[in-house]
Amino acid sequence: MSSRRTFLKNLKNSALGGALLSLGGAASLATTGCATGGGDAGSSGSTGGAGGCCATGAGAGAPKTPLVKGAVILFQGDSITDAGRSRKNTGANNPDALGRGYPVLAAGEILRRFAALEPRVFNRGISGNKVHQLAARWDGETIALKPDVLSILIGVNDHWHSIGGGYKGTPEIYEKDYRALLKRTAAALPAARLVICEPFVLKGGGAIRNEAQWFPVFDRYREIAKRLAGEFNTLFVPFQSAFDDAMKTAPAKYWSPDGVHPSLAGAQLMATVWLKTVFG
Amino acid sequence: MSSRRTFLKNLKNSALGGALLSLGGAASLATTGCATGGGDAGSSGSTGGAGGCCATGAGAGAPKTPLVKGAVILFQGDSITDAGRSRKNTGANNPDALGRGYPVLAAGEILRRFAALEPRVFNRGISGNKVHQLAARWDGETIALKPDVLSILIGVNDHWHSIGGGYKGTPEIYEKDYRALLKRTAAALPAARLVICEPFVLKGGGAIRNEAQWFPVFDRYREIAKRLAGEFNTLFVPFQSAFDDAMKTAPAKYWSPDGVHPSLAGAQLMATVWLKTVFG
Repeated sequence: MSSRRTFLKNLKNSALGGALLSLGGAASLATTGCATGGGDAGSSGSTGGAGGCCATGAGAGAPKTPLVKGAVILFQGDSITDAGRSRKNTGANNPDALGRGYPVLAAGEILRRFAALEPRVFNRGISGNKVHQLAARWDGETIALKPDVLSILIGVNDHWHSIGGGYKGTPEIYEKDYRALLKRTAAALPAARLVICEPFVLKGGGAIRNEAQWFPVFDRYREIAKRLAGEFNTLFVPFQSAFDDAMKTAPAKYWSPDGVHPSLAGAQLMATVWLKTVFG
Repeated sequence: MSSRRTFLKNLKNSALGGALLSLGGAASLATTGCATGGGDAGSSGSTGGAGGCCATGAGAGAPKTPLVKGAVILFQGDSITDAGRSRKNTGANNPDALGRGYPVLAAGEILRRFAALEPRVFNRGISGNKVHQLAARWDGETIALKPDVLSILIGVNDHWHSIGGGYKGTPEIYEKDYRALLKRTAAALPAARLVICEPFVLKGGGAIRNEAQWFPVFDRYREIAKRLAGEFNTLFVPFQSAFDDAMKTAPAKYWSPDGVHPSLAGAQLMATVWLKTVFG
C-alpha cells in the first residue's frame, strides 16, 4: 500500500517534514544494524535522522557493542531493574516481563534501532537483591541465558540493608563478592559484553533523609563498581553523575521520590545514559 | 557530592566519553525547556548532545508545540493507546497508569526532555473504542483534564468491528462522528494543541489475513483522519507509513503480531514518530 516514496511524501506533508528530511532525505525511523556499522552512534533514543546527523560527530570508528542476529541482552539487578516485572511471563521483549523501569525503556529503543537483528531482551532483576543473592541464582538466571550483553546494577541494598542492622554488609564484602561474581561470569561467558552500572542514590529522596547513614560510605560502593569495571574491562554506566546533573533541572522527587527507586522520568534518564554508554 | 565538573570528568573516563563530549562538551542528558526554545528539534528520544547537534540541521525556528510549566499531555484512543493501563491508578506520569504501549514510552522521553517544565502525562485510551465511544466519555475523560496537548488515535475498530456484522460502521460514519468530536473539542479547548494519529494496520499480521475485508476500505479511514487533521489544523502522526517503512527491516510479526496491536518494538516506533511529529 505505502512505498518508501509514499513514506517520504507523507513525511514531507506532515509536521515531521523539515526536521527529518533536512537531515539527509533517506532517514528511516526504523534503523537497522547500526551497532555493527557504527552509524547510529551519538543518538541514543533518537531517530535514524538524528543518528545520521550525530554520526558525523562521533562513532565513525568501530562500534562499542557489536550485536549479532538474535543477540541476547540481559538486565540483572535489584528492585530498580526488577521494576515490577511479571514472574509468570519472563519471555524476551515482552513489556510485562521487562517491568516498568529502565530495562523496558532501553529495550524498546534497542528493538526499534536494531530491528534487522531481532534482538532478544530479558530482565531478571529481583527486588531486594544484594551481590550474594545474585550469586546464588547466577547459573540459572544469567549464565543459562547465554547473554551477548549482560548489564548488572547492584549495590544500593548492599549498603541500605546494613542500615538498622538487618544485614552485616560492608564495602569490603561488596567488593569481594562482586569480584568473585565477575570472575565467574567472565569464565562462563567469555564472549559476552559486560556492562557494570553505577549504584546511585539521590540526596533529597525520602529514604536518604538521614545522610549520615549514607555518606561517605555509599560513595565507596560506587567507587568499587567503577574499579571493577576497569579491572574486568567492562563498560561502566555513570548513573550517579547523570542523576546529579539532572537534579539541576528538576528536584530529586521528580526523578526518584525515595531517592532509590526512579520515577518514569528517572527510568528514562537511566535508559538514555545506558543506551549511550552501550551503543554510543 | 558530584558536581557538573565531576559529571563531565566521569563521562570522559567512562565509555560514554568520546561520543558525548565530542558533541560540544556541555551536553546534558536531562534537557530542559527546549520545547519553548526550539533547541531540541530533530532529536526525539535523543540526548541533549544529539539534540544540540541536530538542532543545527533543523528546528532553529519556533517550536512546533511550545509547552508551559506543568503542561498536561493526554493520550486518547482505543486498545493500542490503552495498552493494559491500570484502571485503579490513573494519575499523571505513573507507568501503571500509562500502560505498556507508545504512551508510556513517549511519556518517559517527554518527562526526561522537558524536566524543567514538570509536565503531566495521562492516558485515557480504552480498549475496543470507536469514535462514538470516545464521544460518549469525552467530557469527563478529556475536556475535564484540560489538556495542553491532546493526542487521538482512533479508527481501526471503526472498521474492524464492522467485519462480521457486529457494528454497522462505514467510513462516512467515522468521518461524521470524528468531525463532530473535533468541533466539540476545538470549542471546549481552544488553546489545546491537537494531534491526530493515523490509524494503521500491518499487512501480514494475524488479524489482517483476509485482506479483502480490509482493503481498500481501511485506506479511506486513514485518508479521513488525515483530511480532518488538515481541516482542524492539527498535527498528524503518519503511523501507517512509519510501519510500512519499518517492515522493510523486520517482518510484520516483529512490529505487531496481529497487525493491529504493536509489540514493544512497534510501540517504540510509534513513540519515536509521535515525538518527532509533536516536538520535532
